Amino acid sequence: MGKTGKPKRTVARRMKGFRDIAAADVAARDRMIARIRTVYERYGFTPLETPALEYVDVLGKFLPEADQPDAGIFAFRDEDQDWVALRYDLTAPLSRFVAMNLQHLPLPFRRYQIAPVYRMDKPGPGRFREFYQFDFDTVGTGSMLADAECCMVMCDALEAVGIDRGDYIVNLNDRKVLTGVLERVAGGSRMADDLAGNVLRQIDKLERIGREGVEQMLGAGRKDDSGAFNQGTGLTPEQINIVMTYLDVAGDTRRAVYDAMESVVGDSKIGREGVDELRQIDETLTCAGYGDDRVVIDPTVVRGLAYYTGPVFEAVLTFDVQDDNGQSRQFGSVFGGGRYDNLIARFTGQQVLSTGASMGVDRLLAALKALGKIGGVSATAPVLVSRLDKNLTADYVELVTELRDAGIGAELYVGKQGIGKQFKYASDSGKTLAIVMGSDELAKGEISMKDLRLGNELAKEIGADRKRWLEEQPAQFSTPRANLVSAVREVLARYA
Amino acid sequence: MGKTGKPKRTVARRMKGFRDIAAADVAARDRMIARIRTVYERYGFTPLETPALEYVDVLGKFLPEADQPDAGIFAFRDEDQDWVALRYDLTAPLSRFVAMNLQHLPLPFRRYQIAPVYRMDKPGPGRFREFYQFDFDTVGTGSMLADAECCMVMCDALEAVGIDRGDYIVNLNDRKVLTGVLERVAGGSRMADDLAGNVLRQIDKLERIGREGVEQMLGAGRKDDSGAFNQGTGLTPEQINIVMTYLDVAGDTRRAVYDAMESVVGDSKIGREGVDELRQIDETLTCAGYGDDRVVIDPTVVRGLAYYTGPVFEAVLTFDVQDDNGQSRQFGSVFGGGRYDNLIARFTGQQVLSTGASMGVDRLLAALKALGKIGGVSATAPVLVSRLDKNLTADYVELVTELRDAGIGAELYVGKQGIGKQFKYASDSGKTLAIVMGSDELAKGEISMKDLRLGNELAKEIGADRKRWLEEQPAQFSTPRANLVSAVREVLARYA
Repeated sequence: MGKTGKPKRTVARRMKGFRDIAAADVAARDRMIARIRTVYERYGFTPLETPALEYVDVLGKFLPEADQPDAGIFAFRDEDQDWVALRYDLTAPLSRFVAMNLQHLPLPFRRYQIAPVYRMDKPGPGRFREFYQFDFDTVGTGSMLADAECCMVMCDALEAVGIDRGDYIVNLNDRKVLTGVLERVAGGSRMADDLAGNVLRQIDKLERIGREGVEQMLGAGRKDDSGAFNQGTGLTPEQINIVMTYLDVAGDTRRAVYDAMESVVGDSKIGREGVDELRQIDETLTCAGYGDDRVVIDPTVVRGLAYYTGPVFEAVLTFDVQDDNGQSRQFGSVFGGGRYDNLIARFTGQQVLSTGASMGVDRLLAALKALGKIGGVSATAPVLVSRLDKNLTADYVELVTELRDAGIGAELYVGKQGIGKQFKYASDSGKTLAIVMGSDELAKGEISMKDLRLGNELAKEIGADRKRWLEEQPAQFSTPRANLVSAVREVLARYA
Repeated sequence: MGKTGKPKRTVARRMKGFRDIAAADVAARDRMIARIRTVYERYGFTPLETPALEYVDVLGKFLPEADQPDAGIFAFRDEDQDWVALRYDLTAPLSRFVAMNLQHLPLPFRRYQIAPVYRMDKPGPGRFREFYQFDFDTVGTGSMLADAECCMVMCDALEAVGIDRGDYIVNLNDRKVLTGVLERVAGGSRMADDLAGNVLRQIDKLERIGREGVEQMLGAGRKDDSGAFNQGTGLTPEQINIVMTYLDVAGDTRRAVYDAMESVVGDSKIGREGVDELRQIDETLTCAGYGDDRVVIDPTVVRGLAYYTGPVFEAVLTFDVQDDNGQSRQFGSVFGGGRYDNLIARFTGQQVLSTGASMGVDRLLAALKALGKIGGVSATAPVLVSRLDKNLTADYVELVTELRDAGIGAELYVGKQGIGKQFKYASDSGKTLAIVMGSDELAKGEISMKDLRLGNELAKEIGADRKRWLEEQPAQFSTPRANLVSAVREVLARYA
């Protein structure tokens, strides 16, 4: 109680960057996920669930934004004063699981996981602190077959949810090729990790700052849009030239691209290994029918995570959509992944060769919505049994039970508003049909039905002629009580 | 790096009270949930998702174990130094959501939510700190129709997952009846909240400490099994007598029970209101065909939560199972709920009449397993395309792609073990069928198939005669390469 004697109210509020997801969106997402799960399972991936909380040292620090000091995770001390955190991805928990179960896990182990992950990023439009990832990984093999299948899974998943071939592309590259290029930049020996990381980050900015921007950032630096000067990597013009030659590699076929890469990496052993990996993946893809229209080799793909060791890949949506301001924009990458042969070794001390990819659930869902490929998923029971006369409640309970026993979703109106408000409630909550029965109908052994969708459409069409419509009520009709189930089925079938 | 120069390994470990859930268990749970979701949706409940994190004051403190100082939630300070916590149930977040959206939410609002919740309880066998709840609630109506439907949903849900009628019972009571009884104990006026809470907690112990135990605890107290003395409530023998008379209320029908209750509550207004609520619920249930074999009125049901204001209910599994030590035990309550008319008012200042129930997902799943009602859910692709001869990999890729294109789950073996180990891998990971093709078969245009399930069964039967079995290979046969898909379908159909 406050000093005034009034009870102090709690303010109902949600944490910033978090959201509530309404029925239609949950249903649309679940439908999308079900289709993608079918694809993952078709390749032999099986579900695994790991906890949302893990020890911080077990998760490690592998966020792509790790160089931004304000990017973070939700971490706190547990009752034993150990640091724990909400998972920020699904790969770190998978690594922990594999390390704990390596003795008895049949390898290669193929798992998928769909779960929310948590990042304390700066929230913004479409950027949430709790969001779903949907990962699939193959653990315990160095075979490029597994990496080729990653590319195939991404293609199949996107087509399964209705993205047409041609509206997406899988971009493939290999970190070993990049390492080979950096070896050449470093004059033939392995480039120091810090410097290599710096160069890769500049390359990764290509899409944002353009070719010239990358060239400047590899050298002395450049002014960004705000006018601030960003310090560059400080490579010599000759060194920069090697990187730019590599980034300019292009070709009409995957083969043409890795052949061109081969000449850039020269005699770098690791670079040649990377080219050979791309060659193997290309052969498998070709064999399985995944041509250059679906998977291309792109020398500019880096993928942000420091732990990738071999092939890296992403699936990108290539069509434009108009946003609310009439601006055309692209959705960009909806899958990202790669091979991480050393990640599990930080627990086991020995390599557990692994590869996999992660789907950004929200971005793909937004794209499907923009394409009109996922709308109209109704999560509500289609029928409302209204209560015109509260004295007939027992009869209404019988009606609704009969419908449910027939497997038809039917909600009994349990509020206390009048029939007009009940129809509005039925429309607002997405019902297809309302059933009405007064004492007259009861005496005649009849029920009335109102086709709410038809009613709403007619109401729109008729407009000014509303009065006539109200009198004629074309969307409303009567039927014998005994025909309840079949009459309801008939109306529902109009919208099936 | 440690002082010895060796890289320091992180120990792969999981937080106590948390668990990893393997493929078969995820698949079994998802199948159970899908069936129950169908029931919820049939009644007009729609999905809502709220965040895992909420402000602590928004969640409030409504845990049933709130009198135990060591029971708790996972709480910490966010970057703004506000206290936030992982949700410990789904009702508190629902209340927050309703309060934030009350202006435009069509009422009554019916939502379901399935999500993990988090409690820092003492972990134990079957007791986890992260576990799923599956709630359904009707917000914005005081109609007893909504409470009656809660009972009906619980019955339908249990039958939908295969619990036979007679193997469960829904126990129903009303907090207003209890309040009425306490009013009589207090001599006609409302009993003080603290004392009332104390009495309810003693009643709630009935199943654990028995009738005599409750009688003692309502009075001076009693020694528990450890020999420690537990201070009682301190009621007079006359007061205790009223409570015990109430607890002894029984009858063959719901009507007989609430009639008997009516005489115990006497002229207590709130007590009579409670009896009337039970009468209304009984009438609806009877009307819908939910008889005394499915829903009974039980005066001893309290349900732990302090915020319940009217009907309370639970669904209890009544069959015995043998545990691993041959002891018979019961699973107890798998659903619990009740009406909470004042909960949302702590945000809004005005009542939002609400009722609902929560399902304990793990306990029901354990019961279904014990009954053998949910086993055999396979989450893995049924076919392994083995790689007998690595030089034929391109042909294997074609085989596996053909199967997948036909919608058959098929995993390509991407490890590097020999064929014997590949068969073991296929068996260990639950495959039904392995496909083998060597250069001989390739030349003849054939493939070999191994029915792994049949093989495993025969291997068990044959035992010592293993050598003969290995020669004859009854589970292995050849078929033309062109018949791949139909031959695989034929074998899979044996186990469909």
